[in-house]
Amino acid sequence: MSRPLVVDSVAALRAQIRDWRRDGVSLAMVPTMGALHDGHISLIRIALEKADRCVVSIFVNPTQFAPSEDLDKYPRQLGRDLDRLAEAGAQLAFTPGVAQMYPAGFATKISVGGPAAGLESDFRPTFFDGVATVVAKLFLQASPDCAVFGEKDYQQLCVVRQLCSDLDLPVDIIGAPTIRDAHGLAMSSRNAYLGETELAVARQLNAILRRTAAALAAGADEGSATAEASRALVEAGFEQVDYVAARESLTLAPWRRDRDGRLLAAAWLGKTRLIDNVEVPSA
Amino acid sequence: MSRPLVVDSVAALRAQIRDWRRDGVSLAMVPTMGALHDGHISLIRIALEKADRCVVSIFVNPTQFAPSEDLDKYPRQLGRDLDRLAEAGAQLAFTPGVAQMYPAGFATKISVGGPAAGLESDFRPTFFDGVATVVAKLFLQASPDCAVFGEKDYQQLCVVRQLCSDLDLPVDIIGAPTIRDAHGLAMSSRNAYLGETELAVARQLNAILRRTAAALAAGADEGSATAEASRALVEAGFEQVDYVAARESLTLAPWRRDRDGRLLAAAWLGKTRLIDNVEVPSA
Repeated sequence: MSRPLVVDSVAALRAQIRDWRRDGVSLAMVPTMGALHDGHISLIRIALEKADRCVVSIFVNPTQFAPSEDLDKYPRQLGRDLDRLAEAGAQLAFTPGVAQMYPAGFATKISVGGPAAGLESDFRPTFFDGVATVVAKLFLQASPDCAVFGEKDYQQLCVVRQLCSDLDLPVDIIGAPTIRDAHGLAMSSRNAYLGETELAVARQLNAILRRTAAALAAGADEGSATAEASRALVEAGFEQVDYVAARESLTLAPWRRDRDGRLLAAAWLGKTRLIDNVEVPSA
Repeated sequence: MSRPLVVDSVAALRAQIRDWRRDGVSLAMVPTMGALHDGHISLIRIALEKADRCVVSIFVNPTQFAPSEDLDKYPRQLGRDLDRLAEAGAQLAFTPGVAQMYPAGFATKISVGGPAAGLESDFRPTFFDGVATVVAKLFLQASPDCAVFGEKDYQQLCVVRQLCSDLDLPVDIIGAPTIRDAHGLAMSSRNAYLGETELAVARQLNAILRRTAAALAAGADEGSATAEASRALVEAGFEQVDYVAARESLTLAPWRRDRDGRLLAAAWLGKTRLIDNVEVPSA
């Protein structure tokens, strides 16, 4: 178990990757905001199955937080993160500061439509602009062959795929299954915000989604089933439900029974916003 | 004089470039919308001084035209363009169709602020989004070491520099001096729209700008000098002046006498809009 090499400048990142490329190795990237948990570790494992080397970026990207959101309190624990990267076998950690990513005068924004429309964007209207811009930068800094993103952030995965396709970014995007605790709760850095009582409520989110997806697959009316899911979330103890919605799984266009679907939800527990999603098999 | 290789798909473009890269050659790109004139040829000559191979893209990019603009009548003359590329020694012409660049479902836009603000953007508000998006795509398709842009489109040159800097696009942007006819008229594909009488008027644009820049460098008041230039353009026969403005030459921020400046103008002759710019030396 060796510690990863840690670099915080684009120049040092590119120098290391250039050395590797000279030896003909392939490279996978796992972009993260740190606070690494078992979900991230599973992404790194997949990355190392796909490529010879794995670079993990750790950057809490301010441009994907709205002023009202949790940028300041977002968990930061670099020492612990580097231990976890060592365990997982990642060879390189890229830990740029904000001034490295967004120097004075920075003025460019990438906006993705299509799968970015609706769902998260209805509640976090500038979120995917921030994600698309930072992901494009990270890919152009590291030029990986592939990158692994968790299905936990399902809409983000679709948006990154659209971004790469539209801009001809030659990076193969790999979606990785969500890692859950024994009760079905999706791993998330934001779970750290939850108290005991909230955790018990949070653990019901996935079960309610799975039940709703099964009802949809069995022929239930879409509007009734998602409304029922929202009621069930509130009864379980969620204070606000931003959305429960079925979508076509690749494009996030309106759901059609004859295509693979995805049921996605976002709901609040106190000041913590949780998201999750499950498959809706085609009829 | 050998004809350039012509490819119209990203796959064929990348295959050819991959072959070249295997032999260790360097690559320069000259993005164009075709209708090649001596200005473009000068860009290709510079490209071939900087790199072993030159790829010229010929693509009339619909996303940088507003609905009211001249997309449909923009001159298209591929056969003649390829002859000119052969003369100039470009090795590769990339001539994608609209469906290759913007397939169904395309949904991504790059917006640049900073140098893109004002001037052209006041009159063509979506122009630089279209330019930035297509230039990023072309660079990601061809991955050139450098690219040559004419100073004729001075604001565009500044915007492309900002784009590459902000997105970490590893392409060295080279600005090339404007090529003019014997009367000072900047070469432009849109000059083809001008009749005899209009041409005589157009040829006064550069002289008026040079005179104004000299006045500014000699201490003239900025507001009075640019207003006087606008009046002179109308007296010369221009029907409408969109702007005559002095700016700081690198950032296009407001002009300061102690820094290198640029005097930029756009004006109409009938249905033809001409732009030009000249240096304003620092005091």
